[in-house]
Amino acid sequence: MTKEDRTPVTVTGLGSMGRALAGAFLDAGHPTTVWNRTPGRAAPLAAKGAVHAGEMADAVAASRLVVTCLTTFEDTVRALEPAAGALPGRALVTLNSGSPAGARETAAWAAAHGARFLAGAVKNVPSAVGRRDTLLYYSGDRTVFDEYGTALRVLGGDTVHLGDEADLAALYEMSVGAMLLPALTGFFQGAAALRSRGLEAGTMVRFAEKWLDMIKSLLPLYAREIDSGDYTDAASSVNLFLAGAAHDDELRKETGVDTDWLAPLNDLLKRAAHAGHGEHSIAALTEVLKGAGPGVTPTPGTPGS
Amino acid sequence: MTKEDRTPVTVTGLGSMGRALAGAFLDAGHPTTVWNRTPGRAAPLAAKGAVHAGEMADAVAASRLVVTCLTTFEDTVRALEPAAGALPGRALVTLNSGSPAGARETAAWAAAHGARFLAGAVKNVPSAVGRRDTLLYYSGDRTVFDEYGTALRVLGGDTVHLGDEADLAALYEMSVGAMLLPALTGFFQGAAALRSRGLEAGTMVRFAEKWLDMIKSLLPLYAREIDSGDYTDAASSVNLFLAGAAHDDELRKETGVDTDWLAPLNDLLKRAAHAGHGEHSIAALTEVLKGAGPGVTPTPGTPGS
Repeated sequence: MTKEDRTPVTVTGLGSMGRALAGAFLDAGHPTTVWNRTPGRAAPLAAKGAVHAGEMADAVAASRLVVTCLTTFEDTVRALEPAAGALPGRALVTLNSGSPAGARETAAWAAAHGARFLAGAVKNVPSAVGRRDTLLYYSGDRTVFDEYGTALRVLGGDTVHLGDEADLAALYEMSVGAMLLPALTGFFQGAAALRSRGLEAGTMVRFAEKWLDMIKSLLPLYAREIDSGDYTDAASSVNLFLAGAAHDDELRKETGVDTDWLAPLNDLLKRAAHAGHGEHSIAALTEVLKGAGPGVTPTPGTPGS
Repeated sequence: MTKEDRTPVTVTGLGSMGRALAGAFLDAGHPTTVWNRTPGRAAPLAAKGAVHAGEMADAVAASRLVVTCLTTFEDTVRALEPAAGALPGRALVTLNSGSPAGARETAAWAAAHGARFLAGAVKNVPSAVGRRDTLLYYSGDRTVFDEYGTALRVLGGDTVHLGDEADLAALYEMSVGAMLLPALTGFFQGAAALRSRGLEAGTMVRFAEKWLDMIKSLLPLYAREIDSGDYTDAASSVNLFLAGAAHDDELRKETGVDTDWLAPLNDLLKRAAHAGHGEHSIAALTEVLKGAGPGVTPTPGTPGS
C-alpha cells in the first residue's frame, strides 16, 4: 500500500495523547492534518510531514476522518463549532475522557451537523499508542468503525467496537478506570510505610507487580459471581477483609502513615456484613455499591440506534 | 532424593492456606505432621500420608521445622504455649497475616523458648501454593531460611528473605497488600455501573485486566519518583486526577452507584494540590500520606540481629 492509498486523517488537539495519535498516523504513512488551539505544538509534527491547519474549518475540510483529542466533550464541541459547516459526510471520532452524558450530547450534536460519530478511549498511556497490544475501545456508528478500521488500528492493535450506543465507551471508560486512583493510592501508602522505616519504595515494586497479577487473576471469578448474583462460594469473604481492616490502625501506629482514606472502605465492608454478606465473597460489595439508588435512565443519543 | 532424605516438617493450622501448605509438602515427599484445633480437618491430609498429631506438643516434637498457619500471631503463640517445652532447637516459621509489632512479639517469645524464628507471608491464594512463580517472603533468622530453603521452596518457587529483622515480612505484607481492597472496590464499582445498564460485569474483565497491566507498568517509575523525592517530571499530574475526580458525580448520576468511598481520595488530591503538588506527579500523594505524624520506632525483635 502506498501513501496515496492510505486514508487521510485529521487530528485536532495536540496534548501528549493527541501528539502520539498524530505521530502514529504519520509513522504509518497516513496523510495527516493537525490543528491545535496553541499552534506551536504542531511544529514537531509538521517537521515529520503533517499539514498544519491554522483554522479548524481547514483541518476538518482536509480529511473525511477527523479524530479529536481535546480534554472534554464540551471542549470538543466548542472547538468544532466554527467548522460545523464542513462536517456533513465526515466521520468524527472523539478520543477524550468524559461522561456517558457528554458522549450522548456530542453524538446528538454531530448528528445534527451531518457527521457520523464514534466515541472512543485510548486505554493506555501516550507512549503505548501504536503498539500491537494497546487497547482502544469505541462505541457509536458501526459503519465508521468498519470503514476506517485499518486506520484506527494504527493507534493500537487491540481495537474494539462496544456497541452502537455512542455513550458505551464512556461508560466502560469510567467503569474500568475506577481501579486506577484507589490502586495507586494503596501503592503510595505502602511506599510511605516503607519510607518511614528507611526502606526504598523500589524494594516493593517486584512484589507489588506480582500482587497486581494475583488481583488480575481474581477478576474473572468475581465477574461470574456478580453476574450470577451468587456470592456463596467465597474464596475470600467479606468477614476476612473485615478482620484485615483491623490492621489499618496498626499500620498507622507502626509507620505514621495516614490511613483515613480507608475508613469508607471499611464502612462498605460493615454494610455488606450487616446486609447478610459476611460469609459471602468480597465481590458482594458490588451489591452494596449498587444501593445508592436508581441511575438516570440513559437517553440513547446515537443516530439510528 | 528419597523420601527419607527430605526434611520432616510439621504444619499447624489447617485452614484453606494451611491445608495447601501441608498438601504441597506431602506432594513433594516430605514426612509431614499436621495439627489443627478442630481435628476433623486433618483427615484428608492423613489420607494422603500425613501424621495427624492430636496434641500440639506431639506436633512440635515430630519435626525440627515447624510451620504455623494460624489466623494471627496471638493465635499462634496461644496454640504453641502448651508445646513450649518442645521448642528448643527447632525452627519456627509463621505464615499468617499480622502486624510488624505482632511479628516482633512472636520473635521475642520464640527466642525466649529457644526456637529460631522466621516470619513469612504467602503472597498469593491457597490454590497457587506450590507453583514455580508463587511468591513467599520471609524475614528473621537467616540460618533458618538457608538451612530449610529447599523445603520452603516447595511452597512456591519465588521465595525471598527480606532481612534479619523479624517484622520486615509483616511490614512488606501490609505495604504491598494495601492495593488489594481499594483496587477490588474500584472493580466492583465499575461492575455495579455496568449492571445498572443491564451489561454483564464479565464484559469488562478483559479491559480491566489490561488496565491492571497498565497500572503495573507505572509502578517502577512512581517508586523512582518517591525514592528520589522528585515529582516534577509528571506523566500524570495531581491536577489531572483532580479533573478526573469531577467524573465521580457523573458516574453516580448516570448509574446510581455509591461513589462516597472516593471522597477521601479526592480530599487527598486536594491536599496534595494545596501543598504545591498540583502539577507534580500523582506519586506525590505519598508525601501527603506520610503526613499523619512520625511512626513508632520499631524495636528489633530478632535474636542476634
